[in-house]
Amino acid sequence: MTDAQRVTLAQIADEAGVSLATISKVLNGRTDVAASTRARVEEHLARHGYTRRGGKQRGQFIELVFHELESSWSMEVIEGVEEVAQAAGLSLVLTVSGSRHEPGADWMQGVLRRRPVGVVMVFSDIAAPNREKLQSRGIPFAIVDPAGDPAPDVPSVGSANWSGGLMATRHLIELGHTRIAAITGPEDMMCSLARVDGYRSAMNAAGLPIDSAWIRFGDFHPTGGEARARELLALAEPPTAIFAGSDLQALGAIAAARAAGLSVPGDLSVVGYDDIALSRWMSPQLTTVHQPLRRMGEEAARLVLRMAEGRQPDTLRMDLATHLVVRGSTAPLGD
Amino acid sequence: MTDAQRVTLAQIADEAGVSLATISKVLNGRTDVAASTRARVEEHLARHGYTRRGGKQRGQFIELVFHELESSWSMEVIEGVEEVAQAAGLSLVLTVSGSRHEPGADWMQGVLRRRPVGVVMVFSDIAAPNREKLQSRGIPFAIVDPAGDPAPDVPSVGSANWSGGLMATRHLIELGHTRIAAITGPEDMMCSLARVDGYRSAMNAAGLPIDSAWIRFGDFHPTGGEARARELLALAEPPTAIFAGSDLQALGAIAAARAAGLSVPGDLSVVGYDDIALSRWMSPQLTTVHQPLRRMGEEAARLVLRMAEGRQPDTLRMDLATHLVVRGSTAPLGD
Repeated sequence: MTDAQRVTLAQIADEAGVSLATISKVLNGRTDVAASTRARVEEHLARHGYTRRGGKQRGQFIELVFHELESSWSMEVIEGVEEVAQAAGLSLVLTVSGSRHEPGADWMQGVLRRRPVGVVMVFSDIAAPNREKLQSRGIPFAIVDPAGDPAPDVPSVGSANWSGGLMATRHLIELGHTRIAAITGPEDMMCSLARVDGYRSAMNAAGLPIDSAWIRFGDFHPTGGEARARELLALAEPPTAIFAGSDLQALGAIAAARAAGLSVPGDLSVVGYDDIALSRWMSPQLTTVHQPLRRMGEEAARLVLRMAEGRQPDTLRMDLATHLVVRGSTAPLGD
Repeated sequence: MTDAQRVTLAQIADEAGVSLATISKVLNGRTDVAASTRARVEEHLARHGYTRRGGKQRGQFIELVFHELESSWSMEVIEGVEEVAQAAGLSLVLTVSGSRHEPGADWMQGVLRRRPVGVVMVFSDIAAPNREKLQSRGIPFAIVDPAGDPAPDVPSVGSANWSGGLMATRHLIELGHTRIAAITGPEDMMCSLARVDGYRSAMNAAGLPIDSAWIRFGDFHPTGGEARARELLALAEPPTAIFAGSDLQALGAIAAARAAGLSVPGDLSVVGYDDIALSRWMSPQLTTVHQPLRRMGEEAARLVLRMAEGRQPDTLRMDLATHLVVRGSTAPLGD
């Protein structure tokens, strides 16, 4: 710790009316400090924009935080982060915490104690107070963001959701479909809205009307895709094609079609999203929008390591391109 | 560190002709000790069965080591270990190292520096010198062992591979199949042999002959299943049913059947193994042998935590039961 920083910490202690030892406990995520005292210290740290340098030795690892592991695509993000960590001689700590919006309070205390080299989060955003906590400890972080929600000043790696929705829908239009439905993800995730907006734009550009019953919000899991597709297929005039918003939802939609006695793609075309590793091994093989999940993990980990070396990122937000992969779950209308 | 241990370390230093500082470096996995010195110290530590207690503070994490992450079932093991770690207030460090037989030398040095509370390994075994290294540092470990290879004195959690192969094959026999082939995993993994031996026993018990061309070794991945199934379907008298050894190989086998113009299960019945999360979302839904991968991860993590508290496990080897899940990829012969 340099003298300049020592003065600053002493000033903060003075202002907050606590001892230097207490400040140090708060910085290290110790829990033996009253919550009100901790909050007061955090407030002063944030007001001064204090950033710790040096201090207690860091753990030799990158921490990767998910709100759930079950998604099939989690593994691809893990692989990407792990590869970059290993190449840098670091371990990977994997944590599950919070909702899909941001990590939980328990995690925040824990990570301050663990002191990783940096944090990669698979969340839609991180609240300002938590951002400040990490910044004041000099712990760089980046969001791997399939959702598309982070504030513009938060380092994040996403992908082109709107373009993905557009490409998927255009492909179905080019196959001659006109009654095209869309199942997207949860309504409170920006990526769901971006994908379905891409769908709308493709329909509008082709001069095709959209029945409001054709747009449904799922959960990105197979069960959601199955339930929404069942509803769509029960419409008086059911769609001949579904843009399913995720590969897992596409699997659910295909199951619903089969249950209704329809063949895919003979009677119903289905486009997924993500291009998970197994999508080419499905029957039929999934036509889907490739989201570079592994590369998103890699880029976020690289971003974090660059910041850990004290370099500022060239750009805070990076959107990797998506592209359509045409396989067997889509066919020309009436084929 | 107690006096008794200090004496022992001093004796070891004396015997090995090195300083106590050098011993300490070796114990902590530091690399600034000549390889020959390190080997000599390890030898003396092992000879005395030295086990460290206390000493440098441990990291607050369980380490989980894989040789590859890509298998779909890795996520289920991760989920199981993560849940137990989180309940114990510990983090999870995830490492990829080595071959499927055991972790690499790089990993072994790293883990001694990291000092986890315990290690869960997804490998078939761990060599005696590495076992001794972990034991001398008081780092408990257990193997999650889908392979079935570990030495009997190594703590491990597996599942009933032979019974799984038997049940899968019996199911096909009960459906009236007689020309039943088996694709198993790599020939150098015990679980491959156990599953195919279960297949053989079921065939023998039913008085059915086995053509030697019907047994093939794959790689547990879709590509291996596809290639081996293609060979089987090209036989003069192709099988009417395949026990595919893993769900991923089952997907490959189904792809090969489709490519040959055969329907599953109409023309060919296929049984998988593992029951990965997506197996009920395949078309057709996979009939498969459920391997409790998540529970295997949980049990291994619990075993390690119990040993970390100084308690000896009641049993070193635990085999969890497998059971058959009948879904849509199998049908009566000639149906």
